[in-house]
Amino acid sequence: MSYDGSGFHGWSRQPGLRTVQQVVEESLGRVLALAAPPALTVAGRTDAGVHARGQAAHADVPVECWEQAGGAALRRLAGLLPPDIRVRAISRAPGGFDARFSALWRRYSYRVCDDPARADPLRRTGTVWYPRELDVARMNEAAAACLGTRDFAAFCRRREGATTVRELLRLDWARQPGSIAVATVMADAFCHHMVRALAGAMLSVGDGARPPGWVAEVLAARVRDPAVRVAPPHGLCLEEVRYPADEELAARAVATRRVRESGASR
Amino acid sequence: MSYDGSGFHGWSRQPGLRTVQQVVEESLGRVLALAAPPALTVAGRTDAGVHARGQAAHADVPVECWEQAGGAALRRLAGLLPPDIRVRAISRAPGGFDARFSALWRRYSYRVCDDPARADPLRRTGTVWYPRELDVARMNEAAAACLGTRDFAAFCRRREGATTVRELLRLDWARQPGSIAVATVMADAFCHHMVRALAGAMLSVGDGARPPGWVAEVLAARVRDPAVRVAPPHGLCLEEVRYPADEELAARAVATRRVRESGASR
Repeated sequence: MSYDGSGFHGWSRQPGLRTVQQVVEESLGRVLALAAPPALTVAGRTDAGVHARGQAAHADVPVECWEQAGGAALRRLAGLLPPDIRVRAISRAPGGFDARFSALWRRYSYRVCDDPARADPLRRTGTVWYPRELDVARMNEAAAACLGTRDFAAFCRRREGATTVRELLRLDWARQPGSIAVATVMADAFCHHMVRALAGAMLSVGDGARPPGWVAEVLAARVRDPAVRVAPPHGLCLEEVRYPADEELAARAVATRRVRESGASR
Repeated sequence: MSYDGSGFHGWSRQPGLRTVQQVVEESLGRVLALAAPPALTVAGRTDAGVHARGQAAHADVPVECWEQAGGAALRRLAGLLPPDIRVRAISRAPGGFDARFSALWRRYSYRVCDDPARADPLRRTGTVWYPRELDVARMNEAAAACLGTRDFAAFCRRREGATTVRELLRLDWARQPGSIAVATVMADAFCHHMVRALAGAMLSVGDGARPPGWVAEVLAARVRDPAVRVAPPHGLCLEEVRYPADEELAARAVATRRVRESGASR
């Protein structure tokens, strides 16, 4: 599913607040004619203001409800959902599928415009306006030093007992027309605030405030560094979640749970 | 300049309403330290909800005010303007320049997504969600018949005494990823509602409701046809206004005024 995070207090249900989970669960409950909204398990529990173009979630529902809704479920869901959420596909999951724990990796983008006077107002909802010019080559130099399996505690909001070791598969910046710089960030999973903290650190390198080697230094210290500013949420978008072949879904979920049972995965 | 038209009652000043003209004039008046906001003449008087990425306007101001603001004017304007308007360039105009009457042509885009269940919520402000699949080849067949210098009265809101003859230089549709169809519409100038009425007529061809030849028939009748539905404003964006070389600006303005003095040009 896709959503514009601007109007939501993030993914996760919170009493009295409009969240993506609450809106999707209620619409899905109506489409499947369930007595109560189903509980969705999501691949990426996005924070308030964070967007998605490729979010994935699963729910356990009685098979007869799914079969009755059938082929019309997607169209009916599109009619019920508000325009800031679109569910692009819906299907019966293969055995062993877990939207959160079966995932192989998540891919996020982080979008910045470093010439706010000339920014495109029509894209401002998904773009951070940065007041200083960014050197993308410097940012990529900093980024390269973070790849691989590492303890990202320096870029994570600390949670007692949860591992902060992740495998960072991709981290690089590219220029797009209109003074836009877009980061592609891919990892098996992310700790809370990890992408935005990495982006914030790289922005400090890109504008010249810090040398490229600073990000690797912060990472190596393995403690949350107050000099790292968590970049704003509205530049961040969950673009894709990748799952293994059907026959590997259950084993992948078991393996991931073993590593991250305590719940820091995002 | 660029703007997201969603939050404005169009370009033109209206008492008590937030319009692009009012907001830009007030900011410009402050930047240039004028006693009262300057009166802007604009290339395209966009309707409520219509966007711009390449709007142009001029104002007559005392040369000493301009010289005092100097090189800082653009940056100061960026700081004063709200995020839904960006002024991308500002300069002293060459002699004879008239933002409205010196223009050689205006180029608009019209953006439609014909699979609303799968639309990108982050782009919805500038995209019309159309509930039926569109055949772009049919729409282009209809479009080709409208090119050239013609009386577009059938697609214009009638104004007493104003000519509705325009030269349509380009009108075609192209597919983009994500079930997007984008029209490029270029003419020396446009009557009120002309792009949206043409887009509406072509959408009726694209979804199969009308044959491709219908648009040319409507055009040939030269009277406003109630069967043509004016397409919604938020798909429309003024992309570019082109002016001749400096030494031809004054002559172009005189020639255009002669043809369209009565004020139907948009």
